Amino acid sequence: MQAKHPSDSICIMTDLVLPSETNPLNNLFGGELLARMDRAASIAARRHSRRIVVTASVNHVAFNRTIPLGSVVTIEAKVSRAFKTSMEVFMDVWIEDRESGVRAKANEAIYTFVAVDETGLPTQIAEITPETELEKTRFEAALRRKQLSLVLAGKMKAQDATELKALFQ
Amino acid sequence: MQAKHPSDSICIMTDLVLPSETNPLNNLFGGELLARMDRAASIAARRHSRRIVVTASVNHVAFNRTIPLGSVVTIEAKVSRAFKTSMEVFMDVWIEDRESGVRAKANEAIYTFVAVDETGLPTQIAEITPETELEKTRFEAALRRKQLSLVLAGKMKAQDATELKALFQ
Amino acid sequence: MQAKHPSDSICIMTDLVLPSETNPLNNLFGGELLARMDRAASIAARRHSRRIVVTASVNHVAFNRTIPLGSVVTIEAKVSRAFKTSMEVFMDVWIEDRESGVRAKANEAIYTFVAVDETGLPTQIAEITPETELEKTRFEAALRRKQLSLVLAGKMKAQDATELKALFQ
Amino acid sequence: MQAKHPSDSICIMTDLVLPSETNPLNNLFGGELLARMDRAASIAARRHSRRIVVTASVNHVAFNRTIPLGSVVTIEAKVSRAFKTSMEVFMDVWIEDRESGVRAKANEAIYTFVAVDETGLPTQIAEITPETELEKTRFEAALRRKQLSLVLAGKMKAQDATELKALFQ
Amino acid sequence: MQAKHPSDSICIMTDLVLPSETNPLNNLFGGELLARMDRAASIAARRHSRRIVVTASVNHVAFNRTIPLGSVVTIEAKVSRAFKTSMEVFMDVWIEDRESGVRAKANEAIYTFVAVDETGLPTQIAEITPETELEKTRFEAALRRKQLSLVLAGKMKAQDATELKALFQ
Amino acid sequence: MQAKHPSDSICIMTDLVLPSETNPLNNLFGGELLARMDRAASIAARRHSRRIVVTASVNHVAFNRTIPLGSVVTIEAKVSRAFKTSMEVFMDVWIEDRESGVRAKANEAIYTFVAVDETGLPTQIAEITPETELEKTRFEAALRRKQLSLVLAGKMKAQDATELKALFQ
Repeated sequence: MQAKHPSDSICIMTDLVLPSETNPLNNLFGGELLARMDRAASIAARRHSRRIVVTASVNHVAFNRTIPLGSVVTIEAKVSRAFKTSMEVFMDVWIEDRESGVRAKANEAIYTFVAVDETGLPTQIAEITPETELEKTRFEAALRRKQLSLVLAGKMKAQDATELKALFQ
Repeated sequence: MQAKHPSDSICIMTDLVLPSETNPLNNLFGGELLARMDRAASIAARRHSRRIVVTASVNHVAFNRTIPLGSVVTIEAKVSRAFKTSMEVFMDVWIEDRESGVRAKANEAIYTFVAVDETGLPTQIAEITPETELEKTRFEAALRRKQLSLVLAGKMKAQDATELKALFQ
Repeated sequence: MQAKHPSDSICIMTDLVLPSETNPLNNLFGGELLARMDRAASIAARRHSRRIVVTASVNHVAFNRTIPLGSVVTIEAKVSRAFKTSMEVFMDVWIEDRESGVRAKANEAIYTFVAVDETGLPTQIAEITPETELEKTRFEAALRRKQLSLVLAGKMKAQDATELKALFQ
Repeated sequence: MQAKHPSDSICIMTDLVLPSETNPLNNLFGGELLARMDRAASIAARRHSRRIVVTASVNHVAFNRTIPLGSVVTIEAKVSRAFKTSMEVFMDVWIEDRESGVRAKANEAIYTFVAVDETGLPTQIAEITPETELEKTRFEAALRRKQLSLVLAGKMKAQDATELKALFQ
Repeated sequence: MQAKHPSDSICIMTDLVLPSETNPLNNLFGGELLARMDRAASIAARRHSRRIVVTASVNHVAFNRTIPLGSVVTIEAKVSRAFKTSMEVFMDVWIEDRESGVRAKANEAIYTFVAVDETGLPTQIAEITPETELEKTRFEAALRRKQLSLVLAGKMKAQDATELKALFQ
Repeated sequence: MQAKHPSDSICIMTDLVLPSETNPLNNLFGGELLARMDRAASIAARRHSRRIVVTASVNHVAFNRTIPLGSVVTIEAKVSRAFKTSMEVFMDVWIEDRESGVRAKANEAIYTFVAVDETGLPTQIAEITPETELEKTRFEAALRRKQLSLVLAGKMKAQDATELKALFQ
């Protein structure tokens, strides 16, 4: 299988925040944003793998900025690294000022998906070759995150997580 | 106010079709698609005008292809022509084949929005200068559609709809 | 097949506007009204044809009045004209004042549906015989709208759209 | 205040059953029907009282027939009896066969609403004068149901519920 | 089949009130509460019977307190009495003060479910042995409610409703 | 402020999986589960802090088991550790077999919330004293997760993350 670029999988989901999607403080309800990101990320994973994909984990989501009612929210999702049968999808979430049009970063999120065949078994996918500096940074960090995830789940010994270990020495 | 290009207002909304959005035939429910297009088109209108915008009319939507459960649907909305205080937004809706990644046109739609100030009064907006051939064609046709709309609403005499009249002579 | 009257297909859908159905200005969200009208119109089309029906197009919807949160909204849908396998459904949307009970017209809309058999193929339907003056006016106009739709889609030459042409001469 | 007829308050809500409104057996989810009936009944109560109304109780709902996905469901709600500040609303729910158009009764339901003024205090409403035989029967029974409700809530002694007591003697 | 206790079937559903679940007065919409109670009650019925269950009727729901936007709502559902193939489920609904943590009763509700086998036929279920005083009171009252329901539906003569009749003598 | 136990904050949310909450494979849609967990976790955080709480981050969610349509899903959320103004909430998600009643673990999730005062500023909260073995293990790990989060966000040097560092030596 030929390696692909992160940009081959990009999914852009631009949408409004309507009253039915807010919390009692009139900001976008966290759960609604998590659900939208799951939809956007799964499309990126599917575009990379050309397979049925299922959410394996949500690795990290930081809610740095509240997103008020009436905002225009853009989620940009790209596969940041592909492993044998799984993919890490990195998302940037933006809101924009109506009058100036200036975009501000609202938050980032990382989800992992597994590609499966029709019978539900994990299936091999293409590799990723990062292009931009940002893509390269995220590609590198993805391996540390994967090791971390395995360590925390007790599926890898901390001693064997070489990439991660380097951080602490 | 400086004229803008259709591409300045582009809104891309990519999303899945989940079971809660289907009709009893397991295709995307028409009303759901109309609602998504209203959201996408209003974002394009807002990006062009930098104003609060309200839906004035749905001019035409043709449902050429059914969109099955599980599809990835992309709505691309761009302002096709701006009048004094109103804008026509033209949308193309695409679905894509999971395995090949090939996109197919599912339907087109045309909505009109009015820009309003904080008190709800219509307010002037920038003009549009089309760039591509397709944008130019849609820009021209927008005037005929506007005349047609005025004629059908009894707000313009058919004799004065010069652009439209030319079609039938 | 015996011709039917528009009143044979009437569908009345009365409902509230709850917070989950509003836009950030606290009025009924345009997309929600489009979705409700799609439901009401499809019921009228089904009552006329006694067949499975699918939305073919939204021909025109004018949003003349905003509909505030808490309103009682009544959609009245009737088949205005039947063609060989397709039907035009004309809708009137009303809101009513709580204290006086007086109804005001909020907007009109026109949708087109196709009747299909179990295999999805278009199937013949009964004709419409209009009764009231309003029904007759809408019946006549429906033909012009159909021709217009064909002309705009490039499926009929403007010269052959005799009904429509008459408008401009 | 002048007495009104049940027919003055009639609310007809016709709608489809879409997949997002079903239970795992592919029938209309009971909770969704209860919610629709609450909306329809509150409109009837508001039409009778011309006041803000709040749901006071659901007195009885029998689910006699399941309502399959794709059905056309009609809820007809009418005020059956008005007390000083509260109203009983009686609903009949119908489904119809697509091919024959024949309607079948799916279930009945009884809800009670209170009319309130702007400050939320109960406020007096017009009386009801039933017209048809069915309306008269329901009007009579409404008093027994009210007494029963008071007895079960411990707000009336069984001995004082004269209408109800008569049933058991 | 061995008798069970009401506590064996308890279902606790704690949830927020978000803006999409309110009425125009910013309180939990009655229909939404009815729907949540249907879900909670069906889980209790299923836990008691270990069968597929379908809602047979809503016997009584009193809305004693409005539940404001942002509240934490807890529904506690327990089977109060089992008959041959049907079960009465009694629910208590609580809201709690954020600062003090004190719980207040918002309302009570009674729903009835029928257990069915895979073919949809009613099927026998275990009996209930109440334990606490409250459970015993509700167990006793359930029989009167059942008789009442049969009398009102014309399926039992008032004279034969011995439990109920005793109330009025 | 007096320390509290994890059990003081427990939130139990039991609910069904209805068709409107599924993905195209007829399992609970990942985004819906993420949203439900956000609701449950925020209730636990609010019960611990008696304050308004806002989601700060989703630290980890592993989707180990798909949850089929019709399942009964129980989310149990408890505050696992409180920091100065933030809390980690640990959730266990269970599904149960209808016939045997046996519960199986579907997944775990960790969210972090910040307590804020009426003006939105972070505000101090009570500490947590874990009681059970499991609570103690999660309490310890919470500190490592917090350090990790700070390191990954560039807000703490890896060298200073003493708890975390110990893992890799």
